[in-house]
Amino acid sequence: MDIAVIGAGNVGGTLGRRWAQNGHRVTFGVRDVGAPKNQELLKQAGTSASLAPIGEVAARASIVLLATPWVNTQEALRSAGSLEGKVLIDATNPIVLGPELFKKGLLVGHDTSGGEQVATWASKARVVKAFNTVGWPVMANPRLAVRAASMLICGDDAEAKKVVKQLSDELGFETADVGALYIARLLEPFGMLWIHMSFGLGWGPDFAFQIIRR
Amino acid sequence: MDIAVIGAGNVGGTLGRRWAQNGHRVTFGVRDVGAPKNQELLKQAGTSASLAPIGEVAARASIVLLATPWVNTQEALRSAGSLEGKVLIDATNPIVLGPELFKKGLLVGHDTSGGEQVATWASKARVVKAFNTVGWPVMANPRLAVRAASMLICGDDAEAKKVVKQLSDELGFETADVGALYIARLLEPFGMLWIHMSFGLGWGPDFAFQIIRR
Repeated sequence: MDIAVIGAGNVGGTLGRRWAQNGHRVTFGVRDVGAPKNQELLKQAGTSASLAPIGEVAARASIVLLATPWVNTQEALRSAGSLEGKVLIDATNPIVLGPELFKKGLLVGHDTSGGEQVATWASKARVVKAFNTVGWPVMANPRLAVRAASMLICGDDAEAKKVVKQLSDELGFETADVGALYIARLLEPFGMLWIHMSFGLGWGPDFAFQIIRR
Repeated sequence: MDIAVIGAGNVGGTLGRRWAQNGHRVTFGVRDVGAPKNQELLKQAGTSASLAPIGEVAARASIVLLATPWVNTQEALRSAGSLEGKVLIDATNPIVLGPELFKKGLLVGHDTSGGEQVATWASKARVVKAFNTVGWPVMANPRLAVRAASMLICGDDAEAKKVVKQLSDELGFETADVGALYIARLLEPFGMLWIHMSFGLGWGPDFAFQIIRR
C-alpha cells in the first residue's frame, strides 16, 4: 500500500517505520527533509520509505496517517491539500501537550469528538479513528505479556476500516471495529485514560488494554 | 463489612449477593420486601443478607453501593437519608435505558460526570466510582479466559478507595485505582463503550478489558 504520514513524531514515525519495514511504500511529510532526525527516521525505515514536504505527500498515497499534535492538525490538513476519497487514519487526540495537559484534558468531547472535527476539516476523506488509545512504545511492539494489545477503530466507511484493520493487525494488534465515527466520542476519552494512567499516574507507557472473552 | 445496596437490580443484586456469600452483612434496600424477586435474591444471597426499605438501609452500613438506573438516582439518594462519612460506591452510568440509550449516549460528560453529580447529591459521602465499566455477567464471574477483567476505580478519598479495592479484588477483579473522582469523566465513557459494544454492536456481555503489561 501507499501510505503518507502527516506528523512524523513518535506516533507517526513509529507506525510509518513499521509499515515501511513491512514493505509498504511510506512517505513521511516533513517540514525539513534534511533535518538529522528525519534522515535518521528514513534510515531506520529502510528502502520503502521516503521524505517529502507535507504538501506533496498526499498525492502519492491512497492512505494518509494523521499523527500531528492536536493544535497543528487543522493547519497540517490545510497544507496537505485535498484528501478526497483517501483513507484518513486519525491517530490524534484533542489535547494540548505540556503542563496544561492534565489540567485541560480533552479539549472537545461528549457531543462531538476530534475525529468528527477532523472529518469536517478533511472534506470527503474516509476518516477512521485509530491508534489514539495507546502510546508509541506499545505501537512499536503491541505484544505485551503473552497476548497483544487491543486496538479499537471506528469510522463511517466500512471499506476504509477494513484497510486500517489490516494495517493494525499486521503490526501485531488485536483490532476491533467498534462502529461509526461518532464513537470517537468514546475512544478519545479511552485514549485520554491511557495518557492519564501512563504519564499522570506514572505507570509509564508499557501497558495497554486487551479485550478478553469468556 | 456492613454493606447497604441501593438498587437491587442486576448490578446491585449480583454484587450484593456475592459479597453476602463472602460473609459480609449486606442489606438490600427495596421498595417491596415481600416481592417474589426480592425474596428470591435473599434466598440466593444467604444468611448474611437481609432486605429493608431504602430509607432504612444506610443507617445499618458504613458502605453503600449505589446501583440505580440513572434517572432514579437522585430520588433514591434522597430516600436513603444522610450518607455523611460513608463510603458510597457509585456504580451508575448517566444513561437512559431503553430505545433512547444509543441515541442519547451519556447524558453528562466531558466537563463533569455522573460520579461528580452523585457527590453533590450525597453530601459528605466518600464517593468512589467503581463497577460501572462492565455488565453484571462479568461481575458474577470476572474470570474470563485465563485472567480476570480489570476494574478501574476513582475517588477523592484514599481510604474509601482502599475499601472498594478490597471489595473488588475479592470478587476476582484485578482492581486499579486510577485517581481522583473527576476521572469518572473518563471511566463513564469507558462504561458506555462497553455498553455500546455489548448491546449496540451485539458482542454480548461476556467480555471485558484487561490491563496487560510488558
